[in-house]
Amino acid sequence: MNDCIFCKIINKEIPSVTIYEDDIIIGFLDISQTTKGHTLIIPKKHYENIYEIDEDTLAYIYKKVPKIACALKTAFKAKGMNVVNNNGELAGQTVFHFHVHLIPRYNEKDGFRAIYTNHMDKYSKEDLEKIAVQIRENFN
Amino acid sequence: MNDCIFCKIINKEIPSVTIYEDDIIIGFLDISQTTKGHTLIIPKKHYENIYEIDEDTLAYIYKKVPKIACALKTAFKAKGMNVVNNNGELAGQTVFHFHVHLIPRYNEKDGFRAIYTNHMDKYSKEDLEKIAVQIRENFN
Repeated sequence: MNDCIFCKIINKEIPSVTIYEDDIIIGFLDISQTTKGHTLIIPKKHYENIYEIDEDTLAYIYKKVPKIACALKTAFKAKGMNVVNNNGELAGQTVFHFHVHLIPRYNEKDGFRAIYTNHMDKYSKEDLEKIAVQIRENFN
Repeated sequence: MNDCIFCKIINKEIPSVTIYEDDIIIGFLDISQTTKGHTLIIPKKHYENIYEIDEDTLAYIYKKVPKIACALKTAFKAKGMNVVNNNGELAGQTVFHFHVHLIPRYNEKDGFRAIYTNHMDKYSKEDLEKIAVQIRENFN
């Protein structure tokens, strides 16, 4: 894609600090360094999001995650690791080229925070069964 | 694992609302329903986290994500999708059996929120190169 910043990184038109590269993917440091070592893994082929990417490329990307996660843990003595993929502006996606964040965690004020509201009381067993039916009906 | 709640779900000792199941993985509704349709995908074999899980099982799990993400998007007209894996208590892991969250997004107050602090000004190009070297040195 002509105007995609990640395609430009892949094509070396924009510099990046690469930590891993092969024919299919590239791993590089996120310029924002939300936490120390914050890394992105992206496919070299342009896919916008999880709905577009093909299953084999996705599997290939994630197959590389444990190795990189272990290296980040060891290199910086990380105490936790968030592996995050955001799809859509509302979900926090800012570059519309599929990417996986590896965010090593050090303490509660290290720069990343996620809040999960518990809505357990909102749904009955029947509500959940109905939701599951709706999901299964939409499998292709 | 004897005392693992997810192993008990797999073994049907604890009920869950299943949306997908095969020999390797199971997908079911997260009881907290952080947002409507909030789904977990887990391997049937017990792995604690991203450092422990084998690459093929991980690839298999994520290969199923697009299909489920598309179904959630279509079923509930989700505007975004967060695909999240947390490792370690500090990173928000509460059940120590590897799992991937699919969190459909509807609006900014739907129950999930993630904050990424931008630390770009904290690191020079040389700092980033040094970080990359440290990561690469720890690849196995």
